[in-house]
Amino acid sequence: MTFPAACDRPALPQSLRDELCQLLGTRFSTAASVREHHGSDISALDPMPPDAVAYANSLDDIVDISAACYRNDVPMIAYGSGTSLEGWLQASHGGVSIDVSGMNRILEIRVDDMDATVQPGVTRKQLNAALHGTGLFFPIDPGADASLGGMAATRASGTNAVRYGTMRENVLGMTAVLADGRVINTGGRARKSSAGYDLTHLLVGSGGTLATIAELTVKLHPIPEAISAAVCRFPSVDLAVRAVIQTIQLGVPIARIELLDALTMGALNAYSKTQLREAPSLFFELHGSEAGVKEQIETVRMVADEHQGLDFEWAVHPEDRSRLWQARHDAYFAALALRPGCRALTTDAVVPISRLADCIEATAADLAENGLLAPIFGHVGDGNFHALILVDPEDQGEVQRAEAVAHRLAERAIAMHGSCTGEHGIGLTKQHYMAVEHGENAVDVMKAIKAALDPKQLMNPGKIFPRGHSKG
Amino acid sequence: MTFPAACDRPALPQSLRDELCQLLGTRFSTAASVREHHGSDISALDPMPPDAVAYANSLDDIVDISAACYRNDVPMIAYGSGTSLEGWLQASHGGVSIDVSGMNRILEIRVDDMDATVQPGVTRKQLNAALHGTGLFFPIDPGADASLGGMAATRASGTNAVRYGTMRENVLGMTAVLADGRVINTGGRARKSSAGYDLTHLLVGSGGTLATIAELTVKLHPIPEAISAAVCRFPSVDLAVRAVIQTIQLGVPIARIELLDALTMGALNAYSKTQLREAPSLFFELHGSEAGVKEQIETVRMVADEHQGLDFEWAVHPEDRSRLWQARHDAYFAALALRPGCRALTTDAVVPISRLADCIEATAADLAENGLLAPIFGHVGDGNFHALILVDPEDQGEVQRAEAVAHRLAERAIAMHGSCTGEHGIGLTKQHYMAVEHGENAVDVMKAIKAALDPKQLMNPGKIFPRGHSKG
Repeated sequence: MTFPAACDRPALPQSLRDELCQLLGTRFSTAASVREHHGSDISALDPMPPDAVAYANSLDDIVDISAACYRNDVPMIAYGSGTSLEGWLQASHGGVSIDVSGMNRILEIRVDDMDATVQPGVTRKQLNAALHGTGLFFPIDPGADASLGGMAATRASGTNAVRYGTMRENVLGMTAVLADGRVINTGGRARKSSAGYDLTHLLVGSGGTLATIAELTVKLHPIPEAISAAVCRFPSVDLAVRAVIQTIQLGVPIARIELLDALTMGALNAYSKTQLREAPSLFFELHGSEAGVKEQIETVRMVADEHQGLDFEWAVHPEDRSRLWQARHDAYFAALALRPGCRALTTDAVVPISRLADCIEATAADLAENGLLAPIFGHVGDGNFHALILVDPEDQGEVQRAEAVAHRLAERAIAMHGSCTGEHGIGLTKQHYMAVEHGENAVDVMKAIKAALDPKQLMNPGKIFPRGHSKG
Repeated sequence: MTFPAACDRPALPQSLRDELCQLLGTRFSTAASVREHHGSDISALDPMPPDAVAYANSLDDIVDISAACYRNDVPMIAYGSGTSLEGWLQASHGGVSIDVSGMNRILEIRVDDMDATVQPGVTRKQLNAALHGTGLFFPIDPGADASLGGMAATRASGTNAVRYGTMRENVLGMTAVLADGRVINTGGRARKSSAGYDLTHLLVGSGGTLATIAELTVKLHPIPEAISAAVCRFPSVDLAVRAVIQTIQLGVPIARIELLDALTMGALNAYSKTQLREAPSLFFELHGSEAGVKEQIETVRMVADEHQGLDFEWAVHPEDRSRLWQARHDAYFAALALRPGCRALTTDAVVPISRLADCIEATAADLAENGLLAPIFGHVGDGNFHALILVDPEDQGEVQRAEAVAHRLAERAIAMHGSCTGEHGIGLTKQHYMAVEHGENAVDVMKAIKAALDPKQLMNPGKIFPRGHSKG
């Protein structure tokens, strides 16, 4: 893949440097190491450093930095915890990285309303720690301890979206700063409203390309009285997926339901010296009352039996649950350890669940035909899965074959009425699929919205679509 | 309230009449009765007839009608079942009503994926009838048997949003037609996606001001194994609301939880010759497994006891449930019957639940001070309630007092971090509150989006905001 060379752009105007230095003092930096750090995410992409980094401590800071960049026609890229994928943070058009990680105050927790208002740099674990003793928790759990601002920007989810939704369903409202420094409030604290256009949902998933999130209010959920976990192996991915479909249709309010393929289970055995059966496995987590989760377990066991499930295990005590789920938590590192020194090319397809087994099996076949090692695991209740394609970064032929498989997977998912990305986003790397997935007209509408809100194309430019002119 | 006079606009161009006649034959009408019917909803507003009505039978019809209107600079207003409120259908700027009620085919029901794709004229009851035998249902239930296109356009909800969400959470994707006839596809069938801007949520609630919905895919839900109902009276609205808060915090996955105030209960006694206690009452519906709902009932009863609940009754058998819920279903007509010949001015406030009792009590006091009769009932789990202010339409002083109370209620809800409309929408009548609720900057952003998608301001103009120029 080729991206705009960082040298094809004007240097940061001296007047802007002076203004931001004046405004921020030591919170403004052009040090190479700082810039490099802010020009990369956790994908395997090379860094593309911004021209400078501005550390914002407040809404007013974001407003002032934005207004200054706007007057100087300089791009701005919001930076939270740096844990996104797909090149969201790469400064492909230079500009100023607005680091909001210092805006990490939890402004208010309202137990009766089951919501919390936080600054964008608050991480999900930080919020959950602050909720200790309230009986409430915040469920969304991407792999990293990401910032909530970044999670909203990428429409993140994780393992329990099947029960609690993604960031799409869990952000009630925001305060955000437009390119020119204007502050907007979206949504609010009401659980529902029919008043005007849904700007909250427009900003969730927009990856900082429309506005910089300065504050957000998220829904909280009651900690269940009882939690139980179960694990079961299946003879095939298809039987495992059919068990999931039936479980959901029976109305079991499953909180987590994760699929690990045989290769991933083998990786776990190698990694943890276990002797798990190397077969597709489902990991369940059930939330409810004491009696409710027992009943759910019975239903899940019955469904598993009907689908030739093997080695059904379940646990209610925290330590037993942790032991069962340890395998799922270890999956990422166990997968990487299959091939020391490798680089992992991550995919993120999502399809309607009726097509999930087909999609996974076709992908596994494509990987095998291309001699690629790629454990597959994912959030099967949502139809979302990741293939972690392990490649030798020095072997260009292998890297290209892996990229070709990832490309075919994205197109396969779209052809099955799914999406090329379930939770990582388009970023810099998946722009080719936008028109394939949405059609040219819908992409033109998105570009028209971008042009309306960010006419100078300064907000994280070159992400979601190439920087260019609107066809609105 | 004053609205643009229907005579302040040019007549429908003869060339457009000819083109639509040619295209639609008898499906194009300028008959006064047809126009009058299409220029009104079920609010108390006077009709504002469109200049003509075009009956669309297909996506292609909508495309052709839209393109023709666009070339002639003529407004277009989508019409489904005519059951909206707040003047959404009033042709305040004339134009062509595009009636999609004939587009009422259910295109596909996918049981494994728990979704259905329908034309916009399909009504909620029609969809549920078609789901018979699948084990699935579509939960959203506004009072009327509304069309799904209209429900999406107004971001409708109803009595079970607390469990199943509103149209916001239940529309997965759409096919829609822009002002100039371009067709866009939004969302898709994946349960989640992070690919680009969320156009589905932008269109849900946009009331036909951005595009005409031509097809939509909605989520379906499993019919619960068991359903039980309960009713309980409380000494005060505050205690009833506190019982609701605690019930939700305990994680009871309540499906419906409705509040009827003492006046409404009195109206029911008069209407149905019953002797119900005239006290604030909660109506519950619980969905789950057999054992699960029994357990939920026990929890609800315990919570009710703690909040001085009286006359706790519960039922699991369908006929007993129906009997318990009959009072809730009769509330609207019982309220109207309190004052024969009256007109009902409906309100639609929503607040964070911690403020709900305050908001209802302040509103009840305001109504009493103004000598107004107004039963209050609502979807208390969402913080949404309606006061049905009963006025003599001949008594202008009373009508004005009622409008003033409704106005203060909207402002009170907004001041409590809620919204002036939970499920009816802004339409023609609540535009004044847009800036109060969202702030000028957010409204400017909405107008910029409107201008970007509908530069000629032909899509249901004068709704949500006045027709005018963008300040984007």
